[in-house]
Parts: sequence; C-alpha cells; structure tokens
Amino acid sequence: MTASPFDHPLLSGLLGDDEVSVLLGAEADLDAMAAFEAALARAEAVAGLIPAEAGPAIAGACAEFVPNRGEIRAAVARDGVTTVEWVRQLRAAVPEAYREYVHFGVTSQDVIDTSLAVRLKAILALFEDRLGRLIEALAVLEGRFGANRLMARTRMQDALEISVADRLADWRLPLQRHIERLYEVSARVLVLQLGGAVGDRARLGEKAGEVAALIAAELGLSATGKAWHSQRDGIFECASWLTGVSGTIGKIGQDVALMALSGDRQIVLAGGGGSSAMPHKTNPVAAEALVSLARYNAALISGMGQAMVHEQERSGAAWTLEWLTFPQMLMTTGAGLLLAERLLGAVEGIGLGPVINCR
Amino acid sequence: MTASPFDHPLLSGLLGDDEVSVLLGAEADLDAMAAFEAALARAEAVAGLIPAEAGPAIAGACAEFVPNRGEIRAAVARDGVTTVEWVRQLRAAVPEAYREYVHFGVTSQDVIDTSLAVRLKAILALFEDRLGRLIEALAVLEGRFGANRLMARTRMQDALEISVADRLADWRLPLQRHIERLYEVSARVLVLQLGGAVGDRARLGEKAGEVAALIAAELGLSATGKAWHSQRDGIFECASWLTGVSGTIGKIGQDVALMALSGDRQIVLAGGGGSSAMPHKTNPVAAEALVSLARYNAALISGMGQAMVHEQERSGAAWTLEWLTFPQMLMTTGAGLLLAERLLGAVEGIGLGPVINCR
Amino acid sequence: MTASPFDHPLLSGLLGDDEVSVLLGAEADLDAMAAFEAALARAEAVAGLIPAEAGPAIAGACAEFVPNRGEIRAAVARDGVTTVEWVRQLRAAVPEAYREYVHFGVTSQDVIDTSLAVRLKAILALFEDRLGRLIEALAVLEGRFGANRLMARTRMQDALEISVADRLADWRLPLQRHIERLYEVSARVLVLQLGGAVGDRARLGEKAGEVAALIAAELGLSATGKAWHSQRDGIFECASWLTGVSGTIGKIGQDVALMALSGDRQIVLAGGGGSSAMPHKTNPVAAEALVSLARYNAALISGMGQAMVHEQERSGAAWTLEWLTFPQMLMTTGAGLLLAERLLGAVEGIGLGPVINCR
Amino acid sequence: MTASPFDHPLLSGLLGDDEVSVLLGAEADLDAMAAFEAALARAEAVAGLIPAEAGPAIAGACAEFVPNRGEIRAAVARDGVTTVEWVRQLRAAVPEAYREYVHFGVTSQDVIDTSLAVRLKAILALFEDRLGRLIEALAVLEGRFGANRLMARTRMQDALEISVADRLADWRLPLQRHIERLYEVSARVLVLQLGGAVGDRARLGEKAGEVAALIAAELGLSATGKAWHSQRDGIFECASWLTGVSGTIGKIGQDVALMALSGDRQIVLAGGGGSSAMPHKTNPVAAEALVSLARYNAALISGMGQAMVHEQERSGAAWTLEWLTFPQMLMTTGAGLLLAERLLGAVEGIGLGPVINCR
Repeated sequence: MTASPFDHPLLSGLLGDDEVSVLLGAEADLDAMAAFEAALARAEAVAGLIPAEAGPAIAGACAEFVPNRGEIRAAVARDGVTTVEWVRQLRAAVPEAYREYVHFGVTSQDVIDTSLAVRLKAILALFEDRLGRLIEALAVLEGRFGANRLMARTRMQDALEISVADRLADWRLPLQRHIERLYEVSARVLVLQLGGAVGDRARLGEKAGEVAALIAAELGLSATGKAWHSQRDGIFECASWLTGVSGTIGKIGQDVALMALSGDRQIVLAGGGGSSAMPHKTNPVAAEALVSLARYNAALISGMGQAMVHEQERSGAAWTLEWLTFPQMLMTTGAGLLLAERLLGAVEGIGLGPVINCR
Repeated sequence: MTASPFDHPLLSGLLGDDEVSVLLGAEADLDAMAAFEAALARAEAVAGLIPAEAGPAIAGACAEFVPNRGEIRAAVARDGVTTVEWVRQLRAAVPEAYREYVHFGVTSQDVIDTSLAVRLKAILALFEDRLGRLIEALAVLEGRFGANRLMARTRMQDALEISVADRLADWRLPLQRHIERLYEVSARVLVLQLGGAVGDRARLGEKAGEVAALIAAELGLSATGKAWHSQRDGIFECASWLTGVSGTIGKIGQDVALMALSGDRQIVLAGGGGSSAMPHKTNPVAAEALVSLARYNAALISGMGQAMVHEQERSGAAWTLEWLTFPQMLMTTGAGLLLAERLLGAVEGIGLGPVINCR
Repeated sequence: MTASPFDHPLLSGLLGDDEVSVLLGAEADLDAMAAFEAALARAEAVAGLIPAEAGPAIAGACAEFVPNRGEIRAAVARDGVTTVEWVRQLRAAVPEAYREYVHFGVTSQDVIDTSLAVRLKAILALFEDRLGRLIEALAVLEGRFGANRLMARTRMQDALEISVADRLADWRLPLQRHIERLYEVSARVLVLQLGGAVGDRARLGEKAGEVAALIAAELGLSATGKAWHSQRDGIFECASWLTGVSGTIGKIGQDVALMALSGDRQIVLAGGGGSSAMPHKTNPVAAEALVSLARYNAALISGMGQAMVHEQERSGAAWTLEWLTFPQMLMTTGAGLLLAERLLGAVEGIGLGPVINCR
Repeated sequence: MTASPFDHPLLSGLLGDDEVSVLLGAEADLDAMAAFEAALARAEAVAGLIPAEAGPAIAGACAEFVPNRGEIRAAVARDGVTTVEWVRQLRAAVPEAYREYVHFGVTSQDVIDTSLAVRLKAILALFEDRLGRLIEALAVLEGRFGANRLMARTRMQDALEISVADRLADWRLPLQRHIERLYEVSARVLVLQLGGAVGDRARLGEKAGEVAALIAAELGLSATGKAWHSQRDGIFECASWLTGVSGTIGKIGQDVALMALSGDRQIVLAGGGGSSAMPHKTNPVAAEALVSLARYNAALISGMGQAMVHEQERSGAAWTLEWLTFPQMLMTTGAGLLLAERLLGAVEGIGLGPVINCR
C-alpha cells in the first residue's frame, strides 16, 4: 500500500503502465514546457512581436535548459505552479539580450495546459493502439471459440444458450465506438492553450492568431481563436472518455471473473494468480483488477465534473483539482488497457463443457 | 426537504422542470412502452413472424390499453421490472387469438430501454433548444454590454481588465461545443433496444434486421445489428454529456455569484431572492442553484460510471443503478438550463463602475 | 423510469419506503417548521424576549396554520427557500398584535435545518429498529442453518469450506457496529439549528442559551452553544453512516446473488422475480437491488462531501446541494433496509448440497 | 502534471506530506509486514501451535530480512498481492528447520491489512497532533483578532457584521468534533486482521483468540473475535472521517480565499503566491489548494463506498479498489492539514477596515 499503486515499487507490477508513467512524469512535463517556450519564441519572432534573433536564441536555450528541480519544488509551495520559478530559471539561461522576450505575452497556464495537451496527444495515441490491439485479440478469440456455446446469464441466473461470439460482440462493439469517440474528443482537447495573463491574448495584439497557429503547428495541436483557460469542457470530456473505456473493460473483467467461477468454468485462463494460503487456487487476478480500475475511474470522474466549476479567469482550486485527478485517470485507463490485453491473451478456451475438457 | 426537490410540491418552484418531468413520468413511460409493442407487432407482421392480422390487432390494443398501475406496482417488488405484469395485462387486453403474438421474441429490457430512448430523444431535443436559447441570450448580452470593461480575476484576485465580451465568450464557447457533442452522442444513444431474452434476437431469426429497422423507423430511433442490452457506453456517454452541460452552466452561475458580491457588483440582476431575516438583501439564488446542480450531476456521473460494469447478458444491479441515477441527471441538467436562461434574462448590466450607476 | 424511483408510482413497489417518504414529504416538513416556530415563540415568551401572551398566541396559530402551497412554490423560485413566503403567511395567520413577534431573531436556515433534524430523528429511529430486525433475522438464520457447510470463495474462486455461521457473522457484525455508530452520530446531528440572520444569535442576546435549551427540549433535539449553520460536519457524518449501512447490506445482496447462481445454489430463496421472456427463471431481484442501492449511496456521498465546502455564513450553493443529495440518501438506506429484511425473510436454506435437497 | 502530485518531484512542494508518504511507502509496508510475521511466530510459539524455538527463530529472521523487490514486483502481476512471493522469500531466509512454521495459519490479507492498520495508527496519531495544532492556531488568531468586526456573508452577499471570533468558531468547532470522532473511529479500524485462508482462523483452532490477543498487543492494535477481511465498514468509516476533515479545512480555505478578494480584503496573508505574468499579484495559493483537496477527497470517498460491496470471503476487485483509493485519501488529508497550518500561520490580520491599515 502506498499513495499510488501506479508508481509503487511493488504494486506497479500489477497496476503500472510504464509508457504512460513516463509521459506523466516531471521529465516529460519539463520537456514539453520547454518545447512550448521554444515554439512561442520562434512564432513571436516570425510575427515580429520579438526581435528576429530572439526566437532562435530562446529556442536554443530551451533545448539545452536543465532546470534546478529543488528550487522549483520549493517555489511551488508559494506559487502554486511550477512555472513562475521555472521561467525565472529559463530566463537566466537565455543570453541577457533576449531575456525580456522569454515567456512574452503568456502565462503559467499557457505553459502548463499546453504541456498537458502535448503529452496527452502521445497518451491518446497509445490508447488508440491498445484499443486496436484489444479489438484484434477479440477477433482472434472469436475465430477460435466464437462458435462455441455459452450459457447466457441474466440477473446472474442461467438464461439460455448463446454463442461465444455473442458475448464477445458485447465486449468488442463498445471498444470500436470508443475509438470513434476518441477522434471526436481529440479534436476538442488536443488544443493549444494560449491566452496570456487573463486569457485575452492582449499582449499579442493582432498577431495572436498567427502566433497561435504557428505554435500549434509546431507542437502538433489545434489552435482556437480563444484560450480555453477557464473552459474545461474539453478536458472533462476526455476524462469521461477515459471512464467509458475503463468501464467497458471493467465489464469484460467482471464477465471473465464470473466465467472463471469454480462451479462454472466457461473460460480457461493460463497463469492465474497464486494464494499464500491455498496453493491449489488459480485466481483471475487481472480480471478482478479490471473491475477495480473501472470503479476507480468512475469515482474520479466525479472530481473532474466538480472541476468544471472553474470560476472567473483562472481557478486555482479547480485547476489543482484537475492535477490531482486527471493523471490518475490516465494511469487507470492505461493500466486497464494493458491488463485487458494480457487477460485476453491468456484465454485458452471459452464456452460450455468441451472447454474444460480441452485443457 | 423531500426525496427529490425536482418533484417536490414546494422546492420544484426553484428546481423543477415540468417538461422533463412529464417525459420521465410513469404516464409517458407506459405510453412509450405501448408504442414499442405496437411497432414490434406491426413489424413482426410485416416480416411474417406473426400472422398479418396480429400486427394491427395488437397495435390497436396497445393504443387503447390502460394498465392497472396498482397491480404493476405490486408486481415490481417481485419482478424487479414493470414489464412482466404489464405484458400480462396487455396480453389480456388483446383479442384472444393474438395474445400469443404479443411481446413475441422480445424481453423486458427491450421494452424498458427502448422506452427510455424514445423519451430521451424528446428530452435531448428540448435541451438542444434550450442550449440554443442560452447562446442567443449570451449574444444579446454581448451586444448590449460586450464592450464594457470587466476586472478579470485569476485565483480570485484582481488581475487585469478584460472586456465583458471576453468573459461571455468563456461562457458561450463550451455551450456551442455541447451542441456539437450532442449530435455525436445522439447517434450512439438514441438507439432501439431489441435483443430478446439474452440479446441475440434468436427468436426473430433471419428477420431480426428487418424487424429492427421497421421498429426503429417507426419510433424515430437508430437500429443497430446487435442489442446494446449489456453495452452501456452510449448511455454513460449521454450522462457525461449531461454533466458537461451542467458543469458549464455551473461555471456561469459561480461567476455571476462572484460578480454579484456586495463589494464588487460587476453585474446587476433583476429580482434576486429575499431573506426571512434581512429584507435588504438581494440574493443571487439562481446563480447559486446552478452551482448546486453542476455539483450534483458531477456526483451522479460516478454512479453511471459504476453501472458500466454491467455483468453478463443483463445485470439487475447495474441496470437498477441506472434507474436511480440517470433520470436524476436529466432533471438536473434540465433544471439548470431553465435556471440559466432565467438568470441571463435577469441581467441588467455587466461591467465595471458604470454598470452600478446605470441602476 | 422517472426522476426518482423512490417516489415513482410503479417502481416504488420495489424501491419505495413509505415511512421515510412521509417524513421527507412537504407535509411533514411544514409541520416540523410550524413546530419550530411554536417552540420558538413559547421559549422567547418564557425568556421575556417577546410578550408573555405572544408565545401561546403564536404557538396556537402555528398549530392551526394551513399554508398556501402554491404561493410558497412560486416564491421559492425567487427566494431559494420556502420560508420567506411561509413566514409571511404564518405572520398573517397570527393575531395582529403579535405578528411582529413571529420568527423573532431567527432566519430561514434555523427553520429548515431544525425541521430536518426533527424528521431525521424519526428516520434514524426507524433505521435503528430495522437494523435490529435485520440482526434478529440473521440470528434466526444462524440458528437454522449456521452449522451447515458453505464453500468459501476468495477472489471468486472456491477456497475452503466454512460454516454458514461464519458467513452470517460477516454480515451481522458490521450491522451491530452501525448501531453503535448511530448513537455517536445522532449526538452530533440531531441538534437544534438556532443562529439568526448570520448565526451569532445576536438578537437573542443573553437569553440565547436559555431559548435554545427550551426549544431543543420541546423538539427532542440537543442544543449547542453555537449555530451549526455553516458547520456541516454533522450532516456529512450522518450521510457517511447511511452509506456505510447501504454498503454493508449491499455486500449481503452481492453475496446472496452469487450464492443463488444457477451453478452454485448455496442458497434457496422463496419467491424470486419473474422474467417476461423466460418464465422458468427465478431472479434474485431484491439481492441485486441491494447492490444498486449501495452503489447509489456511494455515489451520492460524494455530493455531501462537496457540500462541506460551505462558504462563509451561509452558502446557497452548498446548502441546495444537500437538499438534492441527502434526502435521496435517506431513501436509499431506508429502501435497502426494507429490502434486506424481505430478502433474509425469504431464505429457505443456506449451505452446500443438502440445502438443495431440502427444497 | 504527473500520476500523483503527492509524490511528484515538483508539485509535492505544494501538495506533499513527507511524514505520511514515508508511512505509505513500500519500505514501511515491508517493515510492518515483517513485524506481523514476527509477532505471529512469537504468538504461535507461546500458544504451542509451532515449536517454541520457531518463534524467536522466525522473528529473528524477520528482523533481518531484506526482500528482493524486483522479484516481488514481477510476482504481483501474477498473484495480485505482494505477499505470495514475499512469504516465499521470507521462508527461504528462515533456518530450514523452521520454514514450515512461517506464515502458519494465516493468509496474504492478514499480512496486508494488518500492515495497513499498523501504519494507519501512526498516521492517525500524526493527524490528531495536526488537528490539535490547528485548533491552537485558531485560538491564537482568536486571541489576536477575535474582537474585530467582520462582514458576515450569506449567499455570497453582505449580511450583517459579526465578530471575527464568530467566524473562527465555525472553523474550530468541527475540528474539535473531528478529534472526538477520531477516538471512536480508531477503536473500530485499528484492528488486527487475522483470519487465515477464509477468515475463520480454522488452523489456529482453540488457540486463535490467544494468538490474536498476543499479536495485537505486540503491534498496538485491537483484537476482535473474528477477522474483518470482508467487513470493510471500519476502513470506510475511517475514509469518511478523512473526507470530513478535508471538508472542514476546505471550508476554511474557501472562506480565506473569499476574504482575500481584492475588493474585500478582510484578511491579510503573508507571502502569497506569485504569477508568471502579473508580478503584482498575491495569490492565496494554500487557501485554494485546501478547496481542491477537500473536493478530491469528496470524490474519492465514493470509491471507498463502492469497495464496501466486498463479495464473499475476499474480493480482489473491492480490495484492490481500496488500494487505489485509500492511500490517496490519507495523503489528501495529510497535505490539507499541513497546508491549513501554514495558511493559518500566515494570517497577519482579520476583520474589517482596520486590518488593512495595520499592514
């Protein structure tokens, strides 16, 4: 037990997701923050908001900048964000002539939200791949076992027989729709944050649109005409999508755990978990963990809903609540997708009677 | 205080939504259930699954059928659904020769989920209208006050001045995106439920697709190739959408409540609420209620996330959880949209200084 | 499907709780409000804050007062509370000479929160009785079947045999602790609310303590030295207790549903629910509903947690959120206790093998 | 942004809690697990369940045992718990003659839940201290500023003046009750878990009570007559308590943020947070973070409520959900208590007008 099983030196063996962890780590965050400042400086130089040479000079400094983490950590206690101290350090790392052009016309939230969007893009790409692999795995199972008979259960009671393919379709179709949704959600959440102190891009003047477009292009994000600093519908929608994905694979996990019941055994799994007291047991550990992860995300989405009440031009309270909640949700979904793939890969048989014999 | 302020004889004055209430009421439900059985019978007659005369005969009976509610209520305690007893009564109301063709090949969940989809379509249409009206109201406010100056607040502190139009855009843009999302969500949730006992449409055989298409067309829903009985991603997505809408208007409410602060008064509202102890006060009641409704939906969405773990071919536990949660969410969003419209309509001025003078 | 299954003309057959419904209804609320004003007037007359004759005069009017509900409902939209208009009407019902002494020194929240406390006392007494009956029912089952063997399941897999008494103890012990907790919670939540406009009892002056003690004694509540208007820890604690109770009986429901599995049948239940498509089925409807209710309360408790952030001397937003949430939680727990009792009463056998034979 | 701000190398500057982090870390967990096995062996030796020499031999090995974490992490993926592999390693570290007596009669859950209880005891002691310090800090503020006048706000509007002491009492009284509650909760949650494979202590036979009492005494926990493996009411109650504490200090944070409003300034805080774009600003960072933490715990408590539906003798799904949720809640409450203390310590003035002058 530790503050977060996702990062726990032991429990991450079950619940970890190394790829997502890296993208949510401080290193990737600081890199994306620097990429934002570099793109900003280049764009502002092109737009003539800062001297032409300032662009490459600042961008170059960004590329080599190694922030002092200890000082940032200390400053966060006072500032509530990493960026105030980080910008101070970055500025000091830029040739003196260009220091005043660092972070020109932007604010902490621009850096932090854009860094999130950049990394979110990478994470959602991972998730799309994983969803694709789950769908493929289900297709493989359907090919092998789809024609087998299965006892359908309604209200946890034997109902009538269906085919294994019927059950598998109930697992697969929502996953396909989740991919469809992902495209829609991505268009609304993978968006550059650029607003300046109060979100109106005032210091960028008439060049705001041009600057936004250039930065967005460099970072692989969309640009909008207005900062979304206090419009959190996109990130909430993304969090809902994460919950939906976890929910669907939680249902798969619950079904597998029920199919693996000792008195039922409509599924055969390779390599279940052991017990310290009952060596004869084979526990459907991954299946159960999928249920846990679904329920955890379902609790967390509530926090993201609360964070939508983001008062005025910037709510420290609502924004910090997102920091507490959203990365957990990404980890939850990521871990679930990995476990689901492992679980489906361990299936050695599905269906009534004959399955048991085939073991 | 009562079990539900939405239906409360007194509190519904603030939190009620008569239009949505009617659509979620027993009367509308029973009507939609009958419409489903009528459409089913007609479709099955066309498809040759039941005798040609049975279609109109059953449909005719459905149109006139007045169920005995007391007996249904009593049966729900045993069956967990209204439909078992309701179908029994309906069958008895059909000419004897056709009784066996009533409810042919379908199950309770087909009736109940389809009835929900039918009424949900009407509710979402209402919500689209209301969102449109809110956007219009914001445009009107922008026309009147958009050029005024407003003190932007970040982390609840004075930041820099912005225009009123800037603040209004942060209210409006998410509403526009919610309409965009509504189209996407509707395509996935306004879907006929048709699966039969275990969701495989077995008794409809080769005619299943034809029957589904006919019923869907008659009821104004989409048809899919497979029942969604245990695939709850569509309804969860819809619930998330409701939470997103409530969240956006909750932010409007929170902003208005802060702008109406005694020491601030960047907004002038007509007709605020009174106090039983302090007659001099003018309370921003609707603004505060929008925050309450946003937070309530944000709590409820968690229940819908839990309900996605819908085990096997039908989960009484997960389905009943939806019944407890989803209608509350519809009421919450509906009430919020009504209140937001009222609140925006009461705005008599927004902006710094001059606004107060104009009173 | 309707806004609230608890009050639904059909679904309340499964999920209703008539006793709690009455106590949460408008009638009981208005009665308790009148009882508060009567007790207040009597106490203030004794304390010499209002003329001696005003006490009985107002109390007498309270006893006969029939408020105009339509006007209250209309006023709630403006005032956000029922009390402003209700007090106006009450005042008009009092002989003119004493009108100014009605509601003297108090505010809407005093009336509303105290009315809740009065009715909560009755509800918690009901719940204590029901918990006692559940514990008795478990004792009866233990007497009949406790010595039977049962297959223990860990991680949903056969583990080792235990006695039925072992399983029953896991159901019973938390219920006993919930009764223990109820005493502790009650002492902190069944408390008179008395604070006046801003919670400091200023207009009651030195007599505040005496008045509070008299009212509390008359209404059967505790008195504290300070109004709890913005201290919501007591009501949150009570809501947590409700969730805990629902959670414990939700576990019982989940266990029963699993014991009733077709392939398992370690429990025999009388009178399960029917199916509109599969008449042969016997569904463990009450068991599943207990799971639904547990999960619903577990979602709702989140709303009560949010409502603890009750800003300043009175938060319309947080308080209204309680109105949306807390009565639902009382209904959820009440319905669960009733269903659990019904479920345990339907048990005709528990244990391995022989149980099935005994049917 | 990272998976958990609590453990984040930068954000933990604001949201971290070093003391609680250590107690929730793998090191402290492994230590407490070893302490349990040592106490178990000693107790079983005393009770004659294992040879007399086995007790000290195993306890001695426990004291020196350094587990191979990499192998445990790998095994967790299969077993779902750390203990299966950990016990294997521990056994190998014990002299061969006594290996069979290691972990005798107990199971993974006994080790893991007891380790939690041991560390929870230390955490709750920390929290009691911190609550005490908060109450002292409030007393100090009351001594300095209690007699000042403050504008009370109801529904976010100026109401009437109160004294600063009135506001401070609304902050302090719930904290005092939380300490009272802590004693009650502790008695029900700081309890030894001892049940064996299926919770019935079968292998300990008649000695079970004696063994439990000895272990509990050594570890500073209570013993009960029955394992609480599937009775999660105690841990849920503790989680509710954590939420209540966070909620109370979230209200303090919200009040402070509102008092610090630019147009209000009824509070003067030393050392507010900076802004990367507006150096003139002083942000009430800690106050806002208290709101975030309150709302986060209010979301998480929902997950603990769901985990109460702990099916049968051990639910992998529900238990793992606790692992995801409960440590986050402890961190949230711990961080909040630290921040609240810092915030109250930074108060340099509270009250109307004169406060501003005193700066």
